[in-house]
Amino acid sequence: FPAQDPMWGYFTAIAGQDGEVDAEELQRCLTQTGFSGTYTPFSLETCRIMIAMLDRDHTGKMGFNEFKELFAVLNGWKQNFVMVDRDCSGTVEPHEMSQCIANMGFRISPQALNAIIKRYSRSGKIYFDDYVACCVKLRALTDNFRRRDTMQQGMVNFQYDDFILCTMSL
Amino acid sequence: FPAQDPMWGYFTAIAGQDGEVDAEELQRCLTQTGFSGTYTPFSLETCRIMIAMLDRDHTGKMGFNEFKELFAVLNGWKQNFVMVDRDCSGTVEPHEMSQCIANMGFRISPQALNAIIKRYSRSGKIYFDDYVACCVKLRALTDNFRRRDTMQQGMVNFQYDDFILCTMSL
Ligand SMILES: [Ca+2]
Ligand SMILES: [Ca+2]
Ligand SMILES: [Ca+2]
Repeated sequence: FPAQDPMWGYFTAIAGQDGEVDAEELQRCLTQTGFSGTYTPFSLETCRIMIAMLDRDHTGKMGFNEFKELFAVLNGWKQNFVMVDRDCSGTVEPHEMSQCIANMGFRISPQALNAIIKRYSRSGKIYFDDYVACCVKLRALTDNFRRRDTMQQGMVNFQYDDFILCTMSL
Repeated sequence: FPAQDPMWGYFTAIAGQDGEVDAEELQRCLTQTGFSGTYTPFSLETCRIMIAMLDRDHTGKMGFNEFKELFAVLNGWKQNFVMVDRDCSGTVEPHEMSQCIANMGFRISPQALNAIIKRYSRSGKIYFDDYVACCVKLRALTDNFRRRDTMQQGMVNFQYDDFILCTMSL
């Protein structure tokens, strides 16, 4: 039960009165725990995308289970980034980013991969915050797509309102 | 011809050697010209989305015509925001934001509208930078959708790679 989970006390302290964690609370928590280490702390923007990834009922907040799930996913991505960023400069190069995305199991055309990498670069390099934002978005959009691709045909028929709902939150 | 256009000299100064404007150049330009007025200057994130809105060939940069188009659109949205933000606090309330979006001609269900507004709020208010990010994204996603909805049925059949390409850049 939550009460026995070592993370439960921590979660309730962050969540405050409403018992759920919103983007601003998440940003404070990730900054205070030093999650980003020597890298720049997460922007509010990235924290919003993190919430949106797990927030299937669109309340803009996370419960305890989502909170734990998020930490597990973030830890995996951080390990991946640290491994690629050998000189600890806090950035990875575009071709390393392609490798990262492929390693995560996403199958994306070179054209789309190029567009994505350009979008998340600054002066030709990808910083940790933008790397995480990119991973979170890619996972969430892929999840949204797969959940609708019930026949697993790699194709989905979107109504306009559903398309807007599942892309605007990310 | 561009040479006769009063904005041409300005554009070339910002664009630098490559003759095109990327997100960092755009941010510098919008900050230097004081476009946001008394509101907080645009984040790099919002500038990236602005570029992506007009960047159909996915180079991550804007030419002169896109640059002029962007300013026209931004001016319209700014006027809209200033009108709604009567007390010049730099923020609008969620119900005012619904009105803004409806005024721009988007037809979105109350459920999607709620999710969108939550996503772009901080402590229940929408700031100018987030308001513009929201407008840019909504317009760009709607454009991407309509361009594929050739029969105008409000429905589009997306392949996974195309879905990722047209949502990850925004
Ligand atoms: Ca809370
Ligand atoms: Ca340039
Ligand atoms: Ca106001």
